Formats: sequence, C-alpha cells, structure tokens
Amino acid sequence: MDLSPEQQDLPGQRGPHHHEMRERIVRAAEARFRHFGYGKTTVSEIAADLGVSSAYIYKFFGSKIAICEAVCASLLGRIDEALWAEARSPRTAAERLRRTYRLLLEHSLAMFFNDRRLHDMVITGLDQRWASISRHVEVMEEVARFLVQEGRASGEFERKSPLDEVAKAVASTFSPFCHPVLLEHGIDDDPGAKAEAVATIVLRGLSA
Amino acid sequence: MDLSPEQQDLPGQRGPHHHEMRERIVRAAEARFRHFGYGKTTVSEIAADLGVSSAYIYKFFGSKIAICEAVCASLLGRIDEALWAEARSPRTAAERLRRTYRLLLEHSLAMFFNDRRLHDMVITGLDQRWASISRHVEVMEEVARFLVQEGRASGEFERKSPLDEVAKAVASTFSPFCHPVLLEHGIDDDPGAKAEAVATIVLRGLSA
Repeated sequence: MDLSPEQQDLPGQRGPHHHEMRERIVRAAEARFRHFGYGKTTVSEIAADLGVSSAYIYKFFGSKIAICEAVCASLLGRIDEALWAEARSPRTAAERLRRTYRLLLEHSLAMFFNDRRLHDMVITGLDQRWASISRHVEVMEEVARFLVQEGRASGEFERKSPLDEVAKAVASTFSPFCHPVLLEHGIDDDPGAKAEAVATIVLRGLSA
Repeated sequence: MDLSPEQQDLPGQRGPHHHEMRERIVRAAEARFRHFGYGKTTVSEIAADLGVSSAYIYKFFGSKIAICEAVCASLLGRIDEALWAEARSPRTAAERLRRTYRLLLEHSLAMFFNDRRLHDMVITGLDQRWASISRHVEVMEEVARFLVQEGRASGEFERKSPLDEVAKAVASTFSPFCHPVLLEHGIDDDPGAKAEAVATIVLRGLSA
C-alpha cells in the first residue's frame, strides 16, 4: 500500500483501520510540531510516539512534507468548521459576516500567540503553496459567497452586483485578519478594532 | 565621515556633493539589483560601476543592507509620489480612492512582472522589517486618511465614524493589491477585477 494522502481520502481505498491509523499519525505529528516545530521533528520520532516503525508511517504518507500537509489541513479544517458553524447560525447575515471577521482573527491570533511553531508551519505552507492552504482559502470564499447569498435572500444586502465578484471581494478583505504574514506585521496596531472597522464599512457597502 | 542613512538625511549633515553621490550610489545599486538581484551584488561591484572604492561607498552606507534599504525607499518613494499625485488630483474623492486601488495594483504588478528581483527584495525587506517599508505603509494610511477627509469635506462620505479608524480600515483593504506576498498568491485570480469590486464595496460603505 503506497497511497498518496489524496488517494487515502477516496472512499474504498482504505479500511477503517487505516483511516484510524492515519488520524493517529496526524495527531501525534501535530503534538510534536506544536512543541518542537516541524523542522526539528523526524518521522522516526513520530513513529516512536505511536510505537510503530517509520516504514509503517510511510505506508500512509509519502514524505514528512505529506505529514505536514495533513497536519496543516487538520488545523485549518478546524477553523473551516468554526466558520461554517457561524455561517449557518440563526443570526442575520450581516451579524454572521461581522462575526466571521472576529472568528478569523481570534483563530489566527490564538495560533500566533499560543502555537507559534504551527503558525510558522502555515507560513512555510503558504510559501510552498500547499494544497491544504489553497483549500482553506477556497472555504473562506465559499463562506463569503454563502453569507452574501443569505443576505440577498433575506433582503439585507443589495442584489445588483455580480455575486461571484462580490463574494471574492469580501473574502479578500479578510486577508489582514487571517493571513499569517499580514497578521504578524499588523499585530501591534489593534487588529481587533481594525477588523470591526473593516466589517462595518463592508457591511454598509453590501447593504440594500 | 561615517554617518548612517538617517543622519545623511538630516539637513546640515551633508553637503550637496555628498547628497549627489549618495543618489548615484542608490541608482547604481538599483540597476545592479534589478538585473542580478541584491543577493548576488557586492558593494565592490557597485563601487566599480561608479569608479570609486568600496571604502568610499562605506562613507555613505554602513552595510550592503543599508544600501538595500535606500534602494527600497527610493522604489517605494516613487509609488508614494504617484499616490499623492492622484490623491491631490482634481477629481471627486470617491474617484480618487477608486484610482488608488488601481494605482497600487498597477505598480505592484509592474514590479512583479518586470522587476521580479526587486519584488523579491521588497519581500526580504518585509521579513526583516525595513524602515523603508514601514514608511510606505504609513504613507498608504496617510493617503487613505486624506481621501476620507476630502470625501467628508465634499459631502461625498459619511462623517459619523471615527476618521482614524475608517482610514486604517480603508488602508487595510489595499493589502491584497499592494502586499507582494498576497499579490503573488492572488495573481491568477484576476486581481484587477477584484480591486474594482473591493473599491466598489468600500466606496458604498463610505458614502454619505
């Protein structure tokens, strides 16, 4: 068995045992990356934590970078889940969109202050264009699109501008609050107040 | 004479001759950085281009990094001049603000496509927090603030929200179109259309 992470995700390509083992590897790797950084972690250390051989790990992941990708997908996937939970909450679309800025900022700040080594790993992933990060960027656009649609359906937002264009534009105003490099540079300049102010302008801009 | 670039900028600390020589060094360095990259350029090569000794260059700049800072300040200073020229043009504040997004994107794209080595140098400067880059970020905020004030004075923009907060928020929506890392990542996704769409939402959000 020598499947890529993508193949592993396809139904039928793995048994429940393999699925569970894959998850355990990702969790063990994340714990090591959080404490020591991904650069200082070796595959054999992850294997030792799980009481298996490195060769066994390589049945699930082609390389250490593939493990990093999976850890990154897991981290950002948790943010995506929080975004969707908020987007589907029973609030006005305007309120949900405002809370989306806050949510992104909170998660980004938490990673920056509490898990700097994971934050740095995400920056490496951005440099190297990891698929897990492109996927997260897509989710943020999907959430923006969903909320704009919701606000249009409820009559809160104007309906004239092309939906796709508006959704992408809204998502691009998220960047200073979720992009790890931008966040790092703007960290001293009260990003919370800035996020509220951007949300206010964007919401006025979208309103019917 | 062993003055830092900041000291050189102080009036009275340099004669016209020194000023002119400093400019010539910056121009020669920029040409080398553009063609070969700042990493592959040595101070002695810049000195040779000008027919002077390296020791003479070091009278004006404490290190190669100080030369890079000055080249970066010169590059970004030209963008700042274009921004102020637009900001002070006889158009409505709304039109000037919309053109600011375009102008930033045009300059950033030009550097990315035509002067990739200078673009990469700016990314290094961002990583290393060069003062020349912080200064450019300040100018973008000053321009945003000036345009919001102009629009408030002319009755185009609402006046209730705190000016400072609004100006910083507007400036933060510039990032996807001027930050070299964000620009690079969004380059395939029609940044021109996105800049127009962001400008449209922000202008609606600011309008009276």
